[in-house]
Amino acid sequence: MPADHIAPPAHPFDSAIALAPAGTHLFNGATSPAYWNMIGPFGGLTAAMALQAVLQHPQLLGEPISLTVNFAGPVAQGPITARARPARTNRSTQHWWVELLQTGADGTEQVSTTATVVTAARRPTWGASDTPMPAVPAPETLARSDRSGTPVAWLARYEVRAIQGDIPQRWDGQAADDSLSRWWLRDDPPRPLDFASLTAMADVFFPRVWLKRASRVPVGTVSMTVYFHADGAQLTGCGSGHLLAEARALNFRHGFFDQTGLLWNTQGQLLCSTHQIVYYKE
Amino acid sequence: MPADHIAPPAHPFDSAIALAPAGTHLFNGATSPAYWNMIGPFGGLTAAMALQAVLQHPQLLGEPISLTVNFAGPVAQGPITARARPARTNRSTQHWWVELLQTGADGTEQVSTTATVVTAARRPTWGASDTPMPAVPAPETLARSDRSGTPVAWLARYEVRAIQGDIPQRWDGQAADDSLSRWWLRDDPPRPLDFASLTAMADVFFPRVWLKRASRVPVGTVSMTVYFHADGAQLTGCGSGHLLAEARALNFRHGFFDQTGLLWNTQGQLLCSTHQIVYYKE
Repeated sequence: MPADHIAPPAHPFDSAIALAPAGTHLFNGATSPAYWNMIGPFGGLTAAMALQAVLQHPQLLGEPISLTVNFAGPVAQGPITARARPARTNRSTQHWWVELLQTGADGTEQVSTTATVVTAARRPTWGASDTPMPAVPAPETLARSDRSGTPVAWLARYEVRAIQGDIPQRWDGQAADDSLSRWWLRDDPPRPLDFASLTAMADVFFPRVWLKRASRVPVGTVSMTVYFHADGAQLTGCGSGHLLAEARALNFRHGFFDQTGLLWNTQGQLLCSTHQIVYYKE
Repeated sequence: MPADHIAPPAHPFDSAIALAPAGTHLFNGATSPAYWNMIGPFGGLTAAMALQAVLQHPQLLGEPISLTVNFAGPVAQGPITARARPARTNRSTQHWWVELLQTGADGTEQVSTTATVVTAARRPTWGASDTPMPAVPAPETLARSDRSGTPVAWLARYEVRAIQGDIPQRWDGQAADDSLSRWWLRDDPPRPLDFASLTAMADVFFPRVWLKRASRVPVGTVSMTVYFHADGAQLTGCGSGHLLAEARALNFRHGFFDQTGLLWNTQGQLLCSTHQIVYYKE
């Protein structure tokens, strides 16, 4: 067989979010070592898997408009069942419930993740942006950020070129003035952009409380929302190019902080906005 | 009976979100003329009712941290059933599914609203804010905004004193430079602040696309999220004072725009951040 007929190995992201139909509203997947965080999967990967269940559902109408993922409990290494059900289907919009389930050590089914997704048909309309892309140096002019100091697997799956707000080099407890990070970002190895990978990239920022305090206090995202502004064609048009991604915190109090983020393509089009609330200790 | 033993009439907000237990995970309520919008209830009231089902649930643990409400379909005048179920209960956090249900004209049960809520025990920690309250004139120095030009019932339930970005006085299609509104806001009649009323207030802004375009195109909120930074004691401490509320749009494209908002008390403490994505026509 000629070499060009041998299928290339799947991108690790595609392997990690792969779901096999397993009955009405059900899909089977599994955690992936390539996107492992400290004690569970990278949250962005979990969010992408929840969305993927909707994208693969035979009753899907339209494309994703919004996604909210709630990280309800720990995800253990091993099989995951995704259940995606339409809660309501209208003429041009559809509302989804999604759960990620695992069988606990005691044999009972546990909900690790809950999510809601809205999909809809998009139509051309008047448009405008009140969040122009900031003027920043081109990705080629910036060095790739060194993430070897935090040796968790999923960090190697993203190429980050930080403009500002890279992960602190010294954990000296000195409070930062702000909590803004601005990075060029793409999959490593590069991969054509789609809704699932954009969702994962919306969670790629290290915790704002680490930047603000220069201290690695324990953290965990509680809930994350993505509003999609791009349609599938626009994402396809981005290819495997860099995205400009920024995030900043809004408020830290009583163990929870929130952050807001924006991701643009190199043409300066806003692809999504994203928000999350995160638990922190101490 | 002495006059001070006669119970005062309930505040219209309390009447509007009132839910009566109706079985396991179920509560009965109804739409309220006092918070009626053009063709359905004010969305903030619907969001508050979804939260209220969790707040009244006998298994509730902790206080609200985040709420996402998806407006899945129209809400008709009449009875509403709220179903609130814990999806997962951990040691100090709890994840909820909520649905608002109505019986359709054909006798079938319809989901009008889906929501997820996270509740948790809050503990004192280090804290900071990256969203200080802007310097604005005191509410007493500003005139109350005239909303008589849009005669829908719920507008009369809020006292708005606009600093900037009030509802356009002329619908002349002249695009505005930005989409920022800043208002002092409180219930009318005044009512002590709580989680439900703060949730409703997070949806009090007229559509950003109306401000941006000075044109009343058809709109409808698709999904709305509130991240609570205040605990119950802090909300109680606000009494019935004004809140400073601001909102701005991020991006408008292909029939959907998103907005982000912040609400502070008069002491400058951020009480919540809120985000939503809204459908618009044309």
